[in-house]
Amino acid sequence: METTVYLGKVQSFAQGRWHTPAGEGRPVFHAVTGEPIAEISSEGLDFKGMLDYARTVGGPKLRQMTFHERARMLKALALYLNEHRAELYELSRATGATKQDAWLDIDGGIGTFFVYASKGRRELPDERFLLEGEPERISRGGTFLGHHLLVPLEGVAIHINAFNFPCWGMLEKLAPTFLAGMPAIVKPASVTAYVAERVVRLMLESGILPEGALQLICGGVGDLFDHLTGQDVVTFTGSAETGLRLKSHPTILRETVRFNMEADSLNFSMLGPDVTPDLPEFELFINEVVREMTIKTGQRCTAIRRTLVPADRVDAVLEALTRRLREVVVGDPANEQVQMGPLVSRDQVAEVQARLEELAAAGEIVCGRDGFSVIDADPERGAFFPPTLLYCARPFEHTAPHEVEAFGPVNTVMPYRDLDEAIRLARMGRGSLVGSMVTADPDVARTVVFGTAPYHGRLLILNRECAKENTGHGSPLPHLVHGGPGRAGGGEEMGGIRGLYRYMQRTAIQGSPDMLTAIGNQWMPGASRPEADVHPFRKYFDELRIGETYTTARRTVTEADIVNFAGVSGDFFYAHMDELAARESEVFQGRVAHGYFVLSAAAGLFVDPRPGPVLANYGLENLRFTKPVRPGDTIQARLTVKQKIPREAREGERPGGVVRWHVDVTNQDDELVATYDILTLVARRPESEA
Amino acid sequence: METTVYLGKVQSFAQGRWHTPAGEGRPVFHAVTGEPIAEISSEGLDFKGMLDYARTVGGPKLRQMTFHERARMLKALALYLNEHRAELYELSRATGATKQDAWLDIDGGIGTFFVYASKGRRELPDERFLLEGEPERISRGGTFLGHHLLVPLEGVAIHINAFNFPCWGMLEKLAPTFLAGMPAIVKPASVTAYVAERVVRLMLESGILPEGALQLICGGVGDLFDHLTGQDVVTFTGSAETGLRLKSHPTILRETVRFNMEADSLNFSMLGPDVTPDLPEFELFINEVVREMTIKTGQRCTAIRRTLVPADRVDAVLEALTRRLREVVVGDPANEQVQMGPLVSRDQVAEVQARLEELAAAGEIVCGRDGFSVIDADPERGAFFPPTLLYCARPFEHTAPHEVEAFGPVNTVMPYRDLDEAIRLARMGRGSLVGSMVTADPDVARTVVFGTAPYHGRLLILNRECAKENTGHGSPLPHLVHGGPGRAGGGEEMGGIRGLYRYMQRTAIQGSPDMLTAIGNQWMPGASRPEADVHPFRKYFDELRIGETYTTARRTVTEADIVNFAGVSGDFFYAHMDELAARESEVFQGRVAHGYFVLSAAAGLFVDPRPGPVLANYGLENLRFTKPVRPGDTIQARLTVKQKIPREAREGERPGGVVRWHVDVTNQDDELVATYDILTLVARRPESEA
Repeated sequence: METTVYLGKVQSFAQGRWHTPAGEGRPVFHAVTGEPIAEISSEGLDFKGMLDYARTVGGPKLRQMTFHERARMLKALALYLNEHRAELYELSRATGATKQDAWLDIDGGIGTFFVYASKGRRELPDERFLLEGEPERISRGGTFLGHHLLVPLEGVAIHINAFNFPCWGMLEKLAPTFLAGMPAIVKPASVTAYVAERVVRLMLESGILPEGALQLICGGVGDLFDHLTGQDVVTFTGSAETGLRLKSHPTILRETVRFNMEADSLNFSMLGPDVTPDLPEFELFINEVVREMTIKTGQRCTAIRRTLVPADRVDAVLEALTRRLREVVVGDPANEQVQMGPLVSRDQVAEVQARLEELAAAGEIVCGRDGFSVIDADPERGAFFPPTLLYCARPFEHTAPHEVEAFGPVNTVMPYRDLDEAIRLARMGRGSLVGSMVTADPDVARTVVFGTAPYHGRLLILNRECAKENTGHGSPLPHLVHGGPGRAGGGEEMGGIRGLYRYMQRTAIQGSPDMLTAIGNQWMPGASRPEADVHPFRKYFDELRIGETYTTARRTVTEADIVNFAGVSGDFFYAHMDELAARESEVFQGRVAHGYFVLSAAAGLFVDPRPGPVLANYGLENLRFTKPVRPGDTIQARLTVKQKIPREAREGERPGGVVRWHVDVTNQDDELVATYDILTLVARRPESEA
Repeated sequence: METTVYLGKVQSFAQGRWHTPAGEGRPVFHAVTGEPIAEISSEGLDFKGMLDYARTVGGPKLRQMTFHERARMLKALALYLNEHRAELYELSRATGATKQDAWLDIDGGIGTFFVYASKGRRELPDERFLLEGEPERISRGGTFLGHHLLVPLEGVAIHINAFNFPCWGMLEKLAPTFLAGMPAIVKPASVTAYVAERVVRLMLESGILPEGALQLICGGVGDLFDHLTGQDVVTFTGSAETGLRLKSHPTILRETVRFNMEADSLNFSMLGPDVTPDLPEFELFINEVVREMTIKTGQRCTAIRRTLVPADRVDAVLEALTRRLREVVVGDPANEQVQMGPLVSRDQVAEVQARLEELAAAGEIVCGRDGFSVIDADPERGAFFPPTLLYCARPFEHTAPHEVEAFGPVNTVMPYRDLDEAIRLARMGRGSLVGSMVTADPDVARTVVFGTAPYHGRLLILNRECAKENTGHGSPLPHLVHGGPGRAGGGEEMGGIRGLYRYMQRTAIQGSPDMLTAIGNQWMPGASRPEADVHPFRKYFDELRIGETYTTARRTVTEADIVNFAGVSGDFFYAHMDELAARESEVFQGRVAHGYFVLSAAAGLFVDPRPGPVLANYGLENLRFTKPVRPGDTIQARLTVKQKIPREAREGERPGGVVRWHVDVTNQDDELVATYDILTLVARRPESEA
């Protein structure tokens, strides 16, 4: 049996130091033993002072770092936390988490840091700002351009988290916040705040975060909201009721503070009409429903609450689910045999029971308290709740299954007659975080996806092809958006790099190409192209200037070139080789050189054959052949430094970076015949030569 | 002198028919003559019925159309409105608009439709949904992928507009709404609703819009808000006070209705410290300030309200502005000499006067009512207001110039000592729609842009290079976002295709590559590649199937190939031609084939030489050389239909479309050596052969 170690008053971290609450705190209890484990209070914190501190100390320090520096910081934090997982696992047991539950919370949270660290270095420039999309040509002559710039907001991100994922819930919000360059104040739910506190303590102890980047409030937020401005961001995960109260705060509304919310969600999972019990998808479905009901004891905003089943397969599904649910071992997660722990608290037991009674009024309980037992714990003291399956035979007549969220291992099965009914049922949740369908039929998947997408933030299609690698109905991933419309709160979190936008201001910038080049550090179409003093392939990474240009010698393309190129490449396409057919073609109206010959000849014109700083041409993008090149045409290329992306050298590599060159190939009439970007690796000047 | 034609009760358009208000309406007055021109009331409208009608009739009809169909609809509407501009110009005069003002409102609005029509066809697929970004590889083995899908929301867009741009303000919101596939209900400001009504009437008369796509409320919105859901969107342009009231509506908050707001904005314009009166930029600055003060009689949310000037150039600037402002001819816009018309109403005169008095308490009026005169109109009856320039010598001590918006031709000049001060002053607006700087120095521009970007939705850098083509401080463009943080409301409108996202739900989809291919109609990495029955270059556009693949013969690359290719291309880079240097190179470790040879040889392997449906290869994207090819290696290519984009045939063209092919080139060990997409034009089967 678990024994409870009393943790005492949980501290907050404010203005650079740990703070012990002044008075008596609210007691929180061990989920298994029911004994007090800690006290929570934010009494004595100076909330305005915390905001000022983040704004004046943490914000400026984070904004001085580039995206790559912040990404490396996230990676270092993730590695540090990884080394200290054992104590977090230990602590998580008191919240009722099994090892598998703790893995989701702890490794899931750390994994989010890893993914953002990796995306930050691969998908973002090594700058303090982001240019979004392509420049917009907003003038005929091209002397006036527009572009979109993203810079970090200069306020504070306030993250208010739910009790179920004290680690992941915090880290999934912090990853895009820090990568974007904003400081944060986190406020975990009181009942599991001691886990969040330990994670924050580890991050601070690591010494990796700049001063002021992270503060922690355990307990209420006091007058914090009164001091927010339009540069701040609030994110909230929790009940719709609390969320509504927070987003209605006069300061939030008056100052147009960005507010992102994840709230209640009556997620559906559907067994496809094509899936009969003999198909492997049938078992996948049963496994998924059982797993989603029992993992985290059903305390997941993404859990399956509504299970949609073809009417003629209801009996088979209820039977299979009931059999499996009765086998689930419930008890103290310290025992490795235990598959499902308690709810987080006795209060939650009462809450889930009350909601269950509302649901039961709309159907029947197929599997529940009957025969329920608990191992290694006292069911009267721990917060245990049986896996509970309901069946609602008339789901269009009852609103409860679509409206009432029992935040525990509770799920309602309902029948549908055809896909149209299934889609209507799914939409009755009025906005959910996630829906899933188990089907082997792409037509079923397509119909359900387009029928339910407006009401869902995420949709999962499960079949035998992805069964092994699929991450499950309930798991938000850092690469994909997490959030849902309507009842689910209308928010969006993560989603890869787009998750940073919530913490940044998008600003349209307009000006001449030279001005936008100077601001964005990226050559813009129409900007100056000063001729390089020496061949730019002889320059090191550091020596190349944005806009620097090399104009090649010219080359007259002849019929012999075309024939030779056809011979070497094997490309005897009629437009190049068949005089008669080429003349008849509307597109070519005569014989033309191979596009790839133009590309190759341009390279022949601009390449510098000797070994030098340009190590390799490893890629090419946005190639367009804009005009045919005919025998007798004379071509010339212009090569301009468009962008420089420093790269961390891996073990044994020469330090350097990627240089993106813009290439224009023109003919004797100065008409563009081809345009593209090439990507090269360019070395830095060796220190011995510097 | 203008004579007032009484227009009577302005109608609304609800549930498919024009509606005349039941009782007496609120009178609105001619801005020049002060005489009543119309009555506005929405009495008798069934607001819930309007929502239901849009949801059940307009929404489904718009969603049945593809993006390209909706884009063509926008173009047809723009062409129709263009033909009826004369009557709109005529009507606009009653609002006080000069010809130039009306051009901004009417041609500006129509232009927004044209830009969205063009972007819709160029930048969007011919589908009913949008795939955003690249697929996310969320599993090691690649059997489970993620992607982001955008579909139209299934509710109604409610557009509540300000009085100053009855045409543009409506059309700039409708363009992305309709292109996204959502129906709209527009509610213009009462005082100029008769112009908006005429625009709506023209659009409906054209017969181009599907039934239910557009409804109009002239007058109050009654209980409309009570019936909104999370599938609806509200946009609001107007005062912060009204905006705050609307977004605090219990239904907006409870149902998480998307709410987008553009409100007050104390926009700045700055004369750069480098700009002395002898530079052309000085005159550009004076022109811009005068233009922005007088255009639309200063009734523009984007007008310059705060003019930041180096302290030692204040006298020169005040003198130049005053001289120019005194020359502005004010009066009845029916007279072509008139450069500035009246405000929209006598109420606005009183309002602007009241705000002016607050501003005057913080400084002095340098140019104002003294010597002000009006031509062709009675200044006691029309809503005239003089161009008014203030000077605030201590802008850090006074909050009024940064807080009080006098929505008329009113502007405060303030001095700054250095760039740091200028940036601090700009930010004192606490969030603005736009800021501008006139400077010839890229360092000044960079410093001001990054110093003010977090507080601005748009920043304009004006210098001699873009003087001729620049569109002006005050003009939002459909290509760029319009909106600002904080006081400006925190909203975003337009911004090209991203403007559609406000009317769409983003949904993450997860599943096997084959499932995602079936849903998105685009081949995903890892999805099946069934071998084509005949060479796919012999197939017409309609006959090609997504995923269909052609595996070529193989080719052994030899030293002779490299030498021949070098000879034809002229590319004698050491890695290909210098055995010794290539061996010494860390990157190559021996002689390798040209990357462009691999590309050309792959084309030689997959091309079908005879004339056929594949008309041309006009582009190439995302090329990466992933592994060197050495003499003796044997390569092979696989060509897969990745995406098909139908194209409208231009005059004389063969109908067809773009086919994007994914190409993988591998070596004898099945290792990838190159990967890229090629873009081809492919003909449709001629009708004679069909």
